[in-house]
Amino acid sequence: LNEINENKMCFAGTKLSPNIRGITTSQLIRQGAGKYELIVHAVPVQFSFGHLNMLKNVLPKNVPILSTSKGISVETLEFMNEIIERALGPDYQALYISGPSFAQGLVDGDPTIVTLASKNEELAKKVQVIMSSPDFRVYTSSDVVGIEISGALKNVLAIASGIASGLGFGPNTQASIITRGWRDIKSLVLALGGQTETMLGLAGLGDLMMTCYGGLSRNTKFGRHLAAGKSVQEAIALVGQVVEGYPTADAACRLAKKHKVQVPVLSAIRDVFHGKLSARDMVVMIMCLPLSSEFQPRVKAKDVPRPKL
Amino acid sequence: LNEINENKMCFAGTKLSPNIRGITTSQLIRQGAGKYELIVHAVPVQFSFGHLNMLKNVLPKNVPILSTSKGISVETLEFMNEIIERALGPDYQALYISGPSFAQGLVDGDPTIVTLASKNEELAKKVQVIMSSPDFRVYTSSDVVGIEISGALKNVLAIASGIASGLGFGPNTQASIITRGWRDIKSLVLALGGQTETMLGLAGLGDLMMTCYGGLSRNTKFGRHLAAGKSVQEAIALVGQVVEGYPTADAACRLAKKHKVQVPVLSAIRDVFHGKLSARDMVVMIMCLPLSSEFQPRVKAKDVPRPKL
Repeated sequence: LNEINENKMCFAGTKLSPNIRGITTSQLIRQGAGKYELIVHAVPVQFSFGHLNMLKNVLPKNVPILSTSKGISVETLEFMNEIIERALGPDYQALYISGPSFAQGLVDGDPTIVTLASKNEELAKKVQVIMSSPDFRVYTSSDVVGIEISGALKNVLAIASGIASGLGFGPNTQASIITRGWRDIKSLVLALGGQTETMLGLAGLGDLMMTCYGGLSRNTKFGRHLAAGKSVQEAIALVGQVVEGYPTADAACRLAKKHKVQVPVLSAIRDVFHGKLSARDMVVMIMCLPLSSEFQPRVKAKDVPRPKL
Repeated sequence: LNEINENKMCFAGTKLSPNIRGITTSQLIRQGAGKYELIVHAVPVQFSFGHLNMLKNVLPKNVPILSTSKGISVETLEFMNEIIERALGPDYQALYISGPSFAQGLVDGDPTIVTLASKNEELAKKVQVIMSSPDFRVYTSSDVVGIEISGALKNVLAIASGIASGLGFGPNTQASIITRGWRDIKSLVLALGGQTETMLGLAGLGDLMMTCYGGLSRNTKFGRHLAAGKSVQEAIALVGQVVEGYPTADAACRLAKKHKVQVPVLSAIRDVFHGKLSARDMVVMIMCLPLSSEFQPRVKAKDVPRPKL
């Protein structure tokens, strides 16, 4: 990267700006990070706590960290904002970026619009100006929770969408299942203190559409293999890369249980992964959920207030 | 239809249920409609007032009407609920159905989930049971306004999506432009008294995804021809069918103006149709909108309350 301004592993042949320089973690620990204006954290969620904890004494409190990592810790059920807080302390300034932004599109210079969220929206407004360019537009938000949940859980719906199309069903079924799954995610966003408006935005709908429809993603391919009757292990082997939505489905269902939120569509998808439902029975299950109002509040039976006798 | 249980014009080769019988308007006027349980209105929006007005004295007040028509009257800027009220009077019971439901998918038996809205949600709950089947699931809503606006305006975004891909931009750009356009539509839904939650549902997000990504629709094809430098008239001729989004864009912008709502993305799309912007300049315009918070309230300068001096 530093010698030829190229990321040979992922984007061979594309010259990157000479402003982008690589530095190893050990170099960073030796040099310190005080001279940087903004630190981008792009380490996978499952390894983020360990990594940040190692850099704890190197990262100055006045240099904000911008996380591009999306997901939920399968071990602790934390999102990145909770991981960063646990690793670096509550007064560390952090930002979260999300939206329809395949790396290949960014490298190709395709016009791309994303959301940048921070609990400190004033900080987001400053970084918005630094990050925006004619082909990369950034809008701000203060809804870190909504952005993180949408960004992590959309991968589960991409698998379900792959299952539906793999079974030979057309666009009606794909869109129907994705949307009813999105309704589950809305319940989780609300229960965890996020705003449903965010799900209408770039980190919500925008990222969801790109992931489910913008070419065959790893998650969609995985779903198609399951629809073709492969086991989870066979499907993972056939995809040959990390399938983010697979561990996320289970973590999301555990998180929903913890917060007493009903997520029947996510549960049906998870049950396919656990071998409890066939791909086709998942669709049947989703089609047989009780007839109700579309956004009927989801409260578990035991949480319904009982009249005193 | 009545003799061979087949719609030869649209779905030749598919046998329909013998329960579906055809009747002409003049037969209906002669016979009356008192024996029916539910009347489905599937006349295009632009012709709906005239048609309903003709049937005014035939339709009994106790038989609800279910509208499948989506759009906005280019003449009066009314949606179907306003047209039905003007044609049949305010105490006529009406329902509106919308969601990801290509006719071909329904004929093929693809599992499909939709929203059925009525200002009288109890009526919607009754009709929900009549309409639901193992492969066609219906959820209810009372937000007629949100469902009608989403259903009518999504076609405009399908054209914009076709323009973006026709210019050679990838999935990032398509999803970014659709999502920022959806944000304009949210402003309209709010201004007209609808609920933004509806836009997360089957008649919102579900229908939007299907229309923009579920195979090349007429709207998407139209956008691609514009991107290739064709004039509006040439593009319409090449598509060879009605392009719903084309007149809708102009009507939506007039409606927004009437309600003092800013719709910069919809306006940029409309400007392409009027020859005021090239397809590429439309993308540039959308990418150059002011940096702001993602869902910053859209109020025109003159509507901002001024301090008293």
